[in-house]
Amino acid sequence: MNPELHIDLASIRAAQARIRAIAHRTRVMTSRSFNAEAGLAAFFKCENFQRGGSFKIRGASNFIFSLSREELEHGIVTYSSGNHAQAVAIAAEAAGARATIVMPHDAPRSKVEATRAHGATIVTYDRYRESREAIGRKIAEETGAVLVPPYDHPWTIAGQGTTALELVEDIPDLDALLAPVGGGGLLAGCSIAAKSLHPSIRLFGAEPELANDTYLSFEAGRRIEIPVPTTIADGLRATQPGEITFPILQEHIEGILLVSEEEIKEAVKFFFSRLKIVVEPSGAVAAAAVLFRRLPPGVERAGIILSGGNVDLELLATF
Amino acid sequence: MNPELHIDLASIRAAQARIRAIAHRTRVMTSRSFNAEAGLAAFFKCENFQRGGSFKIRGASNFIFSLSREELEHGIVTYSSGNHAQAVAIAAEAAGARATIVMPHDAPRSKVEATRAHGATIVTYDRYRESREAIGRKIAEETGAVLVPPYDHPWTIAGQGTTALELVEDIPDLDALLAPVGGGGLLAGCSIAAKSLHPSIRLFGAEPELANDTYLSFEAGRRIEIPVPTTIADGLRATQPGEITFPILQEHIEGILLVSEEEIKEAVKFFFSRLKIVVEPSGAVAAAAVLFRRLPPGVERAGIILSGGNVDLELLATF
Repeated sequence: MNPELHIDLASIRAAQARIRAIAHRTRVMTSRSFNAEAGLAAFFKCENFQRGGSFKIRGASNFIFSLSREELEHGIVTYSSGNHAQAVAIAAEAAGARATIVMPHDAPRSKVEATRAHGATIVTYDRYRESREAIGRKIAEETGAVLVPPYDHPWTIAGQGTTALELVEDIPDLDALLAPVGGGGLLAGCSIAAKSLHPSIRLFGAEPELANDTYLSFEAGRRIEIPVPTTIADGLRATQPGEITFPILQEHIEGILLVSEEEIKEAVKFFFSRLKIVVEPSGAVAAAAVLFRRLPPGVERAGIILSGGNVDLELLATF
Repeated sequence: MNPELHIDLASIRAAQARIRAIAHRTRVMTSRSFNAEAGLAAFFKCENFQRGGSFKIRGASNFIFSLSREELEHGIVTYSSGNHAQAVAIAAEAAGARATIVMPHDAPRSKVEATRAHGATIVTYDRYRESREAIGRKIAEETGAVLVPPYDHPWTIAGQGTTALELVEDIPDLDALLAPVGGGGLLAGCSIAAKSLHPSIRLFGAEPELANDTYLSFEAGRRIEIPVPTTIADGLRATQPGEITFPILQEHIEGILLVSEEEIKEAVKFFFSRLKIVVEPSGAVAAAAVLFRRLPPGVERAGIILSGGNVDLELLATF
């Protein structure tokens, strides 16, 4: 394998150096009221405060900043339900590359607008009828643009892993770490970083019950594909775990915790009313799993990734 | 005058030591998108992350922790539109004193619930027909409880002044500082702290156009009383500046900046969608004045107090 495609602590540290100029080192928050409800000490890695409003800037900028000047000149293209789109638009702008983003027609308005604000060209598609991968590949073939994978690439995964690198550096005595799982890029990268620094740490993913492709894949021992999920957690609507991410998760993860739509909404409202921070539904899924006590016994200090904060006020008001 | 009733840097530092166990040292946030809109560098003192969701814990706990054991045994009583109520309930609980809180019947639900959660007894009144001061005084007379003034007392003012003490310590090269004005306790305390540490700093208050009692009082050169304001900034519905706070403001403040209801709502939404933090309407009034460029020329680095974050999601959704 190309050594650049191998993911280990060194590649995650290299990613950290590469993305430093564009990605924030986000803060870790705590909440006595959350701890009282959850029955443990929680440490929230606030990627809702990240550039572009989610962790996605880490993987997108690590990928784009790893491209050659020649590759960047042909522009870049990607597909995304929203947060990866914004992240690619920001990183492409910083790298001076033209960006074309394929977004579902029903993506949250705030995400579409924020993506366009960074100069990207938006192409929409029907999430339930068309293949975004096919549209993205077609544009790449026609224009020579490089396709930026949302999760299933070592550079993307290494970039996302910087999230856990920072969290474990800041809070070294965690006994568990949790992240939401869509395609699995965030959790795969974080699991490599966390286990490298802290081999005894316990790792968990969290998924909506309505988007349980990784949960089912764990049960089956192989990648299971489900119909396009309808969960309110719009960032976690992947239909199956990635080819590269899934074996990494199998190696490191203790289990996938499931939460209901109502529990996700309750967690979002908890962050709003008690911590006074805005967390989007996808970003609150791991926290919901802890708040509603889905962790097995023995966890006293849990690191929880709040993966994003891009949610329309109008949607939140319906919770 | 009783030396304990004089307010200077020493009394504000003493307050800081007294309240350390209960009040957070809140963080200072910045936002490149806010700066781009406002045309200056803004430094937000995040009292929306404070215990009880607002700066009020500072003044309330400084007052209550200054009482004798004997005074505390008779309990304490106060009146408040909400944030001072929660603050008094938390500080009284910490001091082991019974608390009775007189709250308007139309106070935000979240504020009433949070106050009750700290064991306080709630007495409601009609904001447009009854005098909360009279009800509070009656309870104090009947029970021997000590009345905790929401703003017009040196201990309260010194406690609120710790907000600016921290902000100016953290960001020493501000050229202006702004705070919202209700009764004036926050701005009075902050003006003494800021001018003591940094004599050339320019100080401004901000009020809703619909609650412009301090603005009118500045114009008249004396305290002017207005009818009960109907502004959405429910924490700023005082009808006149305080007897003690007003002369302090006259000595230190360059001016009162006015903002419309629509501008307050826009600022709240800006914090929600761009900074991913929850700021209540009252808490966003000073930021609205900067966002909508009400500052006179010459200010390049502005410290802005976000005074609270207690707002019902249902209300925010109507903005």
